[in-house]
Amino acid sequence: MTTLDEKFRALEADNAPGQEVRQETSNLNKIMRGEKYTGIPVDFSHGDVDAFPPTPGSSEAWKNGFDKGGQQAYTEYRGAAQIRESLAERLGTFTGSPISADRELIITPGTQGALFLALGATVTTGTKVAVVEPDYFANRKLVKFFGGEIVPIPLHYQGTPSENGPDLNRIEDAFKSGTKVLVFSTPNNPTGLVYSSNSIAEISTLAATHNVTLIVDQLYSRMLYSGEVYTHLRACDIQPENIITIMGPSKTESLSGFRLGTAFGTARLIERMERLQAIVTLRAAGYNQAVLDTWFQEPAGWMQKRIREHEAIRDELLKIFRAADFWTATPQAGSYLFPQLPPLDVGSNTFVRLLRRQAGVTVTPGTEFAPGYNDSIRLNFSQDHAAAVAAAVRIVKMVGVYRK
Amino acid sequence: MTTLDEKFRALEADNAPGQEVRQETSNLNKIMRGEKYTGIPVDFSHGDVDAFPPTPGSSEAWKNGFDKGGQQAYTEYRGAAQIRESLAERLGTFTGSPISADRELIITPGTQGALFLALGATVTTGTKVAVVEPDYFANRKLVKFFGGEIVPIPLHYQGTPSENGPDLNRIEDAFKSGTKVLVFSTPNNPTGLVYSSNSIAEISTLAATHNVTLIVDQLYSRMLYSGEVYTHLRACDIQPENIITIMGPSKTESLSGFRLGTAFGTARLIERMERLQAIVTLRAAGYNQAVLDTWFQEPAGWMQKRIREHEAIRDELLKIFRAADFWTATPQAGSYLFPQLPPLDVGSNTFVRLLRRQAGVTVTPGTEFAPGYNDSIRLNFSQDHAAAVAAAVRIVKMVGVYRK
Repeated sequence: MTTLDEKFRALEADNAPGQEVRQETSNLNKIMRGEKYTGIPVDFSHGDVDAFPPTPGSSEAWKNGFDKGGQQAYTEYRGAAQIRESLAERLGTFTGSPISADRELIITPGTQGALFLALGATVTTGTKVAVVEPDYFANRKLVKFFGGEIVPIPLHYQGTPSENGPDLNRIEDAFKSGTKVLVFSTPNNPTGLVYSSNSIAEISTLAATHNVTLIVDQLYSRMLYSGEVYTHLRACDIQPENIITIMGPSKTESLSGFRLGTAFGTARLIERMERLQAIVTLRAAGYNQAVLDTWFQEPAGWMQKRIREHEAIRDELLKIFRAADFWTATPQAGSYLFPQLPPLDVGSNTFVRLLRRQAGVTVTPGTEFAPGYNDSIRLNFSQDHAAAVAAAVRIVKMVGVYRK
Repeated sequence: MTTLDEKFRALEADNAPGQEVRQETSNLNKIMRGEKYTGIPVDFSHGDVDAFPPTPGSSEAWKNGFDKGGQQAYTEYRGAAQIRESLAERLGTFTGSPISADRELIITPGTQGALFLALGATVTTGTKVAVVEPDYFANRKLVKFFGGEIVPIPLHYQGTPSENGPDLNRIEDAFKSGTKVLVFSTPNNPTGLVYSSNSIAEISTLAATHNVTLIVDQLYSRMLYSGEVYTHLRACDIQPENIITIMGPSKTESLSGFRLGTAFGTARLIERMERLQAIVTLRAAGYNQAVLDTWFQEPAGWMQKRIREHEAIRDELLKIFRAADFWTATPQAGSYLFPQLPPLDVGSNTFVRLLRRQAGVTVTPGTEFAPGYNDSIRLNFSQDHAAAVAAAVRIVKMVGVYRK
């Protein structure tokens, strides 16, 4: 049996995005080579909502919620019925399959909240859970926290488009040998890979055959770059009985400060998630829920412009990293880059800390996304364009200095 | 081993406050005696933030947070350092013992969030947890969810002041026989009983002797009625090593729509709670955290007036219920009443549903707070004074109609 100490060691969060401020970095002075670099500090651990501000009208929508008073402060645990009603319609249209607002949708405190509830509703001691590697760092932690057993599924992302994707054979093997749940993100965090329609159809069919629950995190599916195609799992012809899709407005829409997410799918699982939410946080903050009224209803052209601006940053950072010979996949969607660095004289966690201290650049170590990714770093490039470019140049310079 | 089905059956939330809207009530028509009553519907399942609105300046404080942008959207998981800094000072003063803002305080999504994290940080499969009965309904559900074993501690609340309080002998027995955690609320939810200084000192000393973790929910400790004295556990001379105090501005201050809570105490446990928060919701909504700047800094006289107005409602409802011979303890603090009803012809859950359908009055069944409390109902009387009084009269009338 896992003790609480072991349980919480597995939840170690010192290198998690946003927590860098708690790290002890004074001991880095001894190994720092050269002086500190000048330049605007850039925190690539998350998007910069000052550079890409929240959806227009979001604070007014919040105020409308506040002014509604009690009915908005105390919603059902799964969220205000009226908001779910219109949201279900828009999310159903976007994902290609209708959603019952009453039974198949829950509003959560961020998509982190949705993931927690979804895994809490499906994983208990001994449950085998297939987890893609690399993928969002909390997936593995959540499975461990609920006592599940991780069955790793490699994601190929360094090949040609036709070679790339999750290892479907490994998924089938896992499903055949007692795996009950598969959790994955598409677009993938940290690589920006979008699962092909073939991969998605295969996963759906395999899950239907072997009665596996699918939890798909589509957080970044709206920020799709030129020429890319997105396939929604819930629009597949063959569907497993249990499927939960997770989306939220924290990234592309920069509404992270509101902590809003949604999960939709199998009614029985949504029901469980609501019961769990009742003891976790009761509900997403009532007034904040009103901000969901802006979601998928942004001003005309706003989303297109936002995507275009991100694509321009993506392209310039790719150029910089590739010129320095960092192998880097082209993100098809979302604002993550996952460059692979050449061998360094210092360990990867140390390099990441040096980067922060010496170059004013915060990134997330690859090891947060799967064991073994010591040589990669993740950047959320939803940043001020010029500052991001200058920071990428500093990363390249730092690698030059600490290279083996 | 508990299956997921069993696990979620234990989390059944149909009778939980706020969820009544999801209940099927059409089958009540057959057993309804007489017509529906007229009168303003009153939902005693939670406070009415329209009758007692949020702290003045709360929406402006929120807007200040929003206008701060990225730094307020993405705080450390335990909450924005600057907000914790000033809050720690005010909470330390209120509770009679200093708090380190850096190591001993976490901001959570409501006090529900704080309770979840505190129990998650201390309870795992097989942990024996002493739970007071009756007490806040989520305590028992949380212990079960984390795989703990409930050791019930009776709370005496129907005697004289000197007889009332938790059964200290039972607490000592529990501590002697391997109980690792005690969780309780003071003022007690649902009875409004405030633990005496003697009870608090005894609990603290016993926990220190037997190395038991104390989790105390002081959510309502600011709304203290005339002549009552409140004792803060964390101000005791003899302290156990592990102690967490939970407070938040959702009740007395009517800030529930912001989902804000705090937990403070043992640094090692706060650290664990933060790690857990990282996979549960990341953080309390960033912009909302800014509203904590209004807490314990309300305009002069505002809190006194609020307490006075609640005391007036309390006194009038007590008069109504006592005139009808419903045994009802006098709440010493907080806005809960827990009247005991005479024997009825219908089951307690049915009566509660009839009350909602026929009389427009929503209350929470006593069985939510401990097994066996079929004859009691809980009312949150933080309501419009006149509407609450009229609704209490309807409750008495309904009891007359359905009496055995």
